[in-house]
Amino acid sequence: MSVLGDMLSTLLDRGVRSVPRLAGRNLTMPKLVAELLSGSGEISGLAIAKQIFERYEALDRDGKRDFFRTIARELDLDPARLRSALDAYEASPGKETYRAFASAAEPPRQELIRRLNRLPGGTARLVAMRRDLLEFTRDHPECAALDLDFQHLFASWFNRGFLVLRPINWDTAATLLDKIIAYEAVHAIHNWEDLRRRLKPVDRRCFAFFHPSMPGEPLIFVEVALTRGVPGSIQALLAEDRTEIGAGEADTAVFYSISNCQAGLAGVSFGNSLIKQVASDLSAELPNIKTFVTLSPIPGLMGWVKDDAPALGAPNGDALRQVAAHYLLDIKSAKGLPRDPVARFHLGNGASVYKVHAGADTSPKGIAQSGGAMVNYLYDLDRITQNHEGFATSGAVAASGELRSLAAAGKTLVSESEVNEKSPV
Amino acid sequence: MSVLGDMLSTLLDRGVRSVPRLAGRNLTMPKLVAELLSGSGEISGLAIAKQIFERYEALDRDGKRDFFRTIARELDLDPARLRSALDAYEASPGKETYRAFASAAEPPRQELIRRLNRLPGGTARLVAMRRDLLEFTRDHPECAALDLDFQHLFASWFNRGFLVLRPINWDTAATLLDKIIAYEAVHAIHNWEDLRRRLKPVDRRCFAFFHPSMPGEPLIFVEVALTRGVPGSIQALLAEDRTEIGAGEADTAVFYSISNCQAGLAGVSFGNSLIKQVASDLSAELPNIKTFVTLSPIPGLMGWVKDDAPALGAPNGDALRQVAAHYLLDIKSAKGLPRDPVARFHLGNGASVYKVHAGADTSPKGIAQSGGAMVNYLYDLDRITQNHEGFATSGAVAASGELRSLAAAGKTLVSESEVNEKSPV
Amino acid sequence: MSVLGDMLSTLLDRGVRSVPRLAGRNLTMPKLVAELLSGSGEISGLAIAKQIFERYEALDRDGKRDFFRTIARELDLDPARLRSALDAYEASPGKETYRAFASAAEPPRQELIRRLNRLPGGTARLVAMRRDLLEFTRDHPECAALDLDFQHLFASWFNRGFLVLRPINWDTAATLLDKIIAYEAVHAIHNWEDLRRRLKPVDRRCFAFFHPSMPGEPLIFVEVALTRGVPGSIQALLAEDRTEIGAGEADTAVFYSISNCQAGLAGVSFGNSLIKQVASDLSAELPNIKTFVTLSPIPGLMGWVKDDAPALGAPNGDALRQVAAHYLLDIKSAKGLPRDPVARFHLGNGASVYKVHAGADTSPKGIAQSGGAMVNYLYDLDRITQNHEGFATSGAVAASGELRSLAAAGKTLVSESEVNEKSPV
Amino acid sequence: MSVLGDMLSTLLDRGVRSVPRLAGRNLTMPKLVAELLSGSGEISGLAIAKQIFERYEALDRDGKRDFFRTIARELDLDPARLRSALDAYEASPGKETYRAFASAAEPPRQELIRRLNRLPGGTARLVAMRRDLLEFTRDHPECAALDLDFQHLFASWFNRGFLVLRPINWDTAATLLDKIIAYEAVHAIHNWEDLRRRLKPVDRRCFAFFHPSMPGEPLIFVEVALTRGVPGSIQALLAEDRTEIGAGEADTAVFYSISNCQAGLAGVSFGNSLIKQVASDLSAELPNIKTFVTLSPIPGLMGWVKDDAPALGAPNGDALRQVAAHYLLDIKSAKGLPRDPVARFHLGNGASVYKVHAGADTSPKGIAQSGGAMVNYLYDLDRITQNHEGFATSGAVAASGELRSLAAAGKTLVSESEVNEKSPV
Repeated sequence: MSVLGDMLSTLLDRGVRSVPRLAGRNLTMPKLVAELLSGSGEISGLAIAKQIFERYEALDRDGKRDFFRTIARELDLDPARLRSALDAYEASPGKETYRAFASAAEPPRQELIRRLNRLPGGTARLVAMRRDLLEFTRDHPECAALDLDFQHLFASWFNRGFLVLRPINWDTAATLLDKIIAYEAVHAIHNWEDLRRRLKPVDRRCFAFFHPSMPGEPLIFVEVALTRGVPGSIQALLAEDRTEIGAGEADTAVFYSISNCQAGLAGVSFGNSLIKQVASDLSAELPNIKTFVTLSPIPGLMGWVKDDAPALGAPNGDALRQVAAHYLLDIKSAKGLPRDPVARFHLGNGASVYKVHAGADTSPKGIAQSGGAMVNYLYDLDRITQNHEGFATSGAVAASGELRSLAAAGKTLVSESEVNEKSPV
Repeated sequence: MSVLGDMLSTLLDRGVRSVPRLAGRNLTMPKLVAELLSGSGEISGLAIAKQIFERYEALDRDGKRDFFRTIARELDLDPARLRSALDAYEASPGKETYRAFASAAEPPRQELIRRLNRLPGGTARLVAMRRDLLEFTRDHPECAALDLDFQHLFASWFNRGFLVLRPINWDTAATLLDKIIAYEAVHAIHNWEDLRRRLKPVDRRCFAFFHPSMPGEPLIFVEVALTRGVPGSIQALLAEDRTEIGAGEADTAVFYSISNCQAGLAGVSFGNSLIKQVASDLSAELPNIKTFVTLSPIPGLMGWVKDDAPALGAPNGDALRQVAAHYLLDIKSAKGLPRDPVARFHLGNGASVYKVHAGADTSPKGIAQSGGAMVNYLYDLDRITQNHEGFATSGAVAASGELRSLAAAGKTLVSESEVNEKSPV
Repeated sequence: MSVLGDMLSTLLDRGVRSVPRLAGRNLTMPKLVAELLSGSGEISGLAIAKQIFERYEALDRDGKRDFFRTIARELDLDPARLRSALDAYEASPGKETYRAFASAAEPPRQELIRRLNRLPGGTARLVAMRRDLLEFTRDHPECAALDLDFQHLFASWFNRGFLVLRPINWDTAATLLDKIIAYEAVHAIHNWEDLRRRLKPVDRRCFAFFHPSMPGEPLIFVEVALTRGVPGSIQALLAEDRTEIGAGEADTAVFYSISNCQAGLAGVSFGNSLIKQVASDLSAELPNIKTFVTLSPIPGLMGWVKDDAPALGAPNGDALRQVAAHYLLDIKSAKGLPRDPVARFHLGNGASVYKVHAGADTSPKGIAQSGGAMVNYLYDLDRITQNHEGFATSGAVAASGELRSLAAAGKTLVSESEVNEKSPV
Repeated sequence: MSVLGDMLSTLLDRGVRSVPRLAGRNLTMPKLVAELLSGSGEISGLAIAKQIFERYEALDRDGKRDFFRTIARELDLDPARLRSALDAYEASPGKETYRAFASAAEPPRQELIRRLNRLPGGTARLVAMRRDLLEFTRDHPECAALDLDFQHLFASWFNRGFLVLRPINWDTAATLLDKIIAYEAVHAIHNWEDLRRRLKPVDRRCFAFFHPSMPGEPLIFVEVALTRGVPGSIQALLAEDRTEIGAGEADTAVFYSISNCQAGLAGVSFGNSLIKQVASDLSAELPNIKTFVTLSPIPGLMGWVKDDAPALGAPNGDALRQVAAHYLLDIKSAKGLPRDPVARFHLGNGASVYKVHAGADTSPKGIAQSGGAMVNYLYDLDRITQNHEGFATSGAVAASGELRSLAAAGKTLVSESEVNEKSPV
């Protein structure tokens, strides 16, 4: 990583530093943007891109909103031009008509984003820019279209083939460890000792995806525990006084936390690739590990109970497990997909619902969300494709026999509670 | 580089290797393509991409042509769908209508290329694929459109911000040096001793651009000689028995050879960036170097003389220099740009025509192309933007006073020769 | 570092692991030692070395003491053999007689240490072994001689030419940062936030010496603050809320803490080299830095006052500065060197006494040792050799004019206090 | 390697460069040496060491000889001082008497070598210095003693535990490959294409030992061919048109060339460790490889035939194999060891004589030395220790049954030839 980092840090200096005086110091932002789009000069282009970033980054919230709205509007698609280019291409398909069409079919703001990206370090600054933009998309439809342009380019640039998987452990630079603490989104890391417990023991692993042009910034990371057997409690897994085991003794790898790091990359999905990549790699390194599961929250469970089966109250023990199984396997959103977002993610990846546990997350958040229940999703590398296709085609939820039985019992429990609820006497 | 190389080489194995049996072994190529485009499953997607590459690479020339034509035709734009999506977007601009429009505005073959790129190593295979494709674009217009799709994506992926500049020298791996020998396109490198003379002396440098996903493949490289004064002979510059000087003694950096390495990246321009980057870096490292020039061929000179001023015969000495200056400064193509392609490249980059030399390239090729004349283009970092803009706006050719005088004399020479030619007596 | 680490970790496995069954499992420790010394076989030698280390490391304190005493006695010098070899060499100086002499002039335990060092990782284990040994040298003179053998070999192996200087900063691996916290010996680092304040700001630096065969273990490190002007308070220097400055704004580098890390390397001196190396490097990197000083404790000051000038009580302000200056410049040990050990170290390195400050270390330890006074020693690269030679030859203490005046005043103060003390009225 | 290289190259500059003016420019060589030994100042020490090296390296052959003789004589042992220190130590063994003894027991020139080694880069310069010294040891006995001092220190510094094994292949820097060509001592490498054939194919390997303080200089390297079956011809092994096999298909690793690189390290043995280390590593990487053999010359064979069995003439075919076996197994030097030096090396390492081949080296040198015969020595990791011990204790030559039969037949052949020779009729 540092090799690339070094290389990138040594890039273009004199050119960038010396040219701006000639190019653009006195121009307004719209003029700068126009200049960047019109000019084909590399050096002046870099100088102008640098100025656009610097001026943008100095703006306040309103200034940024106005910047986005202006870009969105001024550099929007020209439907008339596109129609005429399309007509010409249809009339006479060929290289020149296609080139003209392709140019008209894309709003100029995409080219703006690409040219801003030429500046060394530009990618990270564009990702930060889009993080800002996302605030405005709800209220400003023209910003939503601009946001799709960003997302389209990011999906192309952060293509799986360009990403690099790296282990994060106690030999990692503190600079990067700071970011792991900051970005952990599932089970907070409170301090360095907490972090040490997750990274240093030989039965704990962490892996992140990086993009070569942002070598110091993880895109997503997953924390893994190597265990004997499938665990059913996150507090036990993270306990300070737990007994460490040798990596060779483990038969199970547990993905217990997965965190996206870059808000500006929303909608560009990495989690699917990351889990499968890590499972493949661990499987090669530690052949004793036969089982790959998550230990996942069920964030929507208690909300659904409260809304749809309030008579159940706050179930626990076997009842909680049954209700949770029923919720995960049977309860769907309007689109016919599982109502639980975490379930949608893992089932969409080709995992199956494997085990549910009561008393598994006794933190206040765990109790509030799911009554303390958690679930293991199973990543069986031999069945992932099949599961994924079943889910994608027909919404079929892959699950173990145990889960199916629990879900059936849960269903009964819920309907009985409704009967009780409704019976007024 | 090797860090990244190592990382990439360890990527996805078990997944890719184990899944194909389930996914696609018996499918035809069109089915595989359809499957890759329809599926959203990462693992099966990688397995299918791998199969598409392998089958493609096993095709003969005709098979490849048919593959491209099929892709181009079957995954072409749907104008009706695009028109209707455009209407809907205009009627009600918003996130969903824009998303539908954006999807319709792009032929599906672009998404195919992006999905093929997800496979580790896919980028290099796509570049090789396009190298094949370029053979067919002249005779098959539908292939020309497909080629523009490739070029569009490559321009985005090989964006300057993603490239890494690396020195190539005698501490470089032999694997890479083999490629420098193979790719050198201007002044052939005949063997390792020849290569050593260009890379090992302290007054010789070489730099290449790399893309992180193709760490073993240079994209373009430039060879530089550090000299005292501006040289006027390529044979003297490369002489076996020349006297090496200390890097600190040099006052001039001479870009005497620049070679594009990847035929499949035709149309994606790197040379401009490379020269300016290297000039910036050398200027920072060796402050004594004040002058950055090329020592360039004039490939079109004798062709033009033969066509347009045949009475000149084969000029040499001062007459040759005058004619060459006139040719470079005054003779334009139909589009109003300099007729000489090398001149177009450097003037477009913001360089100026600085000096011309007779007897500068006495190789058979040099004599044939330019009567042995060569030219120095000057990269003055303080004037590059201005020169570039003058050239882009009005076609103005920046040149030294000496060159202007020579060109004037050359013009006279040519018109006198025409007079003589025409005078029947 | 990791490159070497990786390489070393992959060394000799099968050989070492497979051979021990044949060689030595049932031998006693003395037999193992004899075997290692007699055998010339590399493989069996490594297996035996490994066993000696393992058995040694499993011993308790008494076992270790007995091991050392046995080695020291059994592998001691043979004076009779040495005398006769010396006679033979004198009688007929030549290759064979010299070889026989050299072999007899060295106790065989030195060869034992060298052979133990052949095992990959052996160096670090030998350093740990000597750390144990140092406990016994006071009470067991034969252990003192063995210890000198260790020290002699370590001085040769940890020769300055073999050491590598590396910066320690926030990009350093957490594994190594843990050791910095553990080894800091002057101003304790209480936790990671404390460490961050010393390593992360751009005006803070840290450098360590490493030996290639112990790549994860610092030998010695120095912490440096870049400041404007010479600071006179350690608490101000380390304050949580201090204002960071740009590295380019600093004119002074302050060595405020230097810690030896390896107890087992006692007597092998690195500090002198480290300070001068770091001063050289910083001077090259940051030409604005013109002044290199320490901010050092005066550990012996109050002890001397109590013993030799009790009437002074607990001076402060200017009186403290005067007394401290007098102590540093004028008060000598029995050997004629400065009584203060820190002064001896820096003056021996060629530094001069530059400034003294009252109220400079208000920690309990600072008050107890020196009444809160601290001193800056100046490393003037142009005068180091001269100062060192003056000190080495005649014990001359280099000092600034200011210090000389203060010392004179301090001397007066002390003699007056003695007068007062003695005057009974 | 480059990490260390980089680190080392950045070491001490200003100090070394700036101080010499003060220290020693005008001193004679003997004064410089005296100064280096007397001074304890690091900086002035480095400056003086640098000057000693520079002046030494500028000397001609006679100057160097005089330098060595002066050092050897002036810094020789002081027997009177040693005797008195030894007496004192015997009278009162303790730390101080031992320290005084140890100092007197070593000639001061050893300390001189250690102090020269403190200069960054000093180790390589000392190795070069000893290479020169070796020329004079035959004629100047005092140089032989000095040489033993060098050898003693080098054996300690180039201890196996400090060495690093690195693969050499086509990804290695050209700078280093140049050295492989230059240092190959057994089967000359004629040019880069020849080198490529030995390093690039997947069934060819090369490994070298390095010392961290000489990262660009291999100490010794071995070339390995991976084959199916044990080969019996060096020309077949190195043939340009041979068929490459996959590394996984090989069952045998053949050490066909081993070259010491540093003449100045004569007498410090690495070959034994290198072969065993490489065998261990290959065995771990490629479990299919079960047999580790050399393909070795028999350099003394024809010389012995000519001297001791001239009636045999120039045997070939089976007769040659029998005679070669008899020579290797039965013919001893005055010391009772095998007369053949290569046999002594491998048998001393614990190898056994495995196979002999006629027509195995048809080069002029091969025919001249051994009538074209070559031999495979077998490295059986499970028998190495045992073989080594048998050889070391009783000179027992380990050999295969086949070799024993051949040797018996060879013995008969030789005695019959002698009978024939002697029978005058």
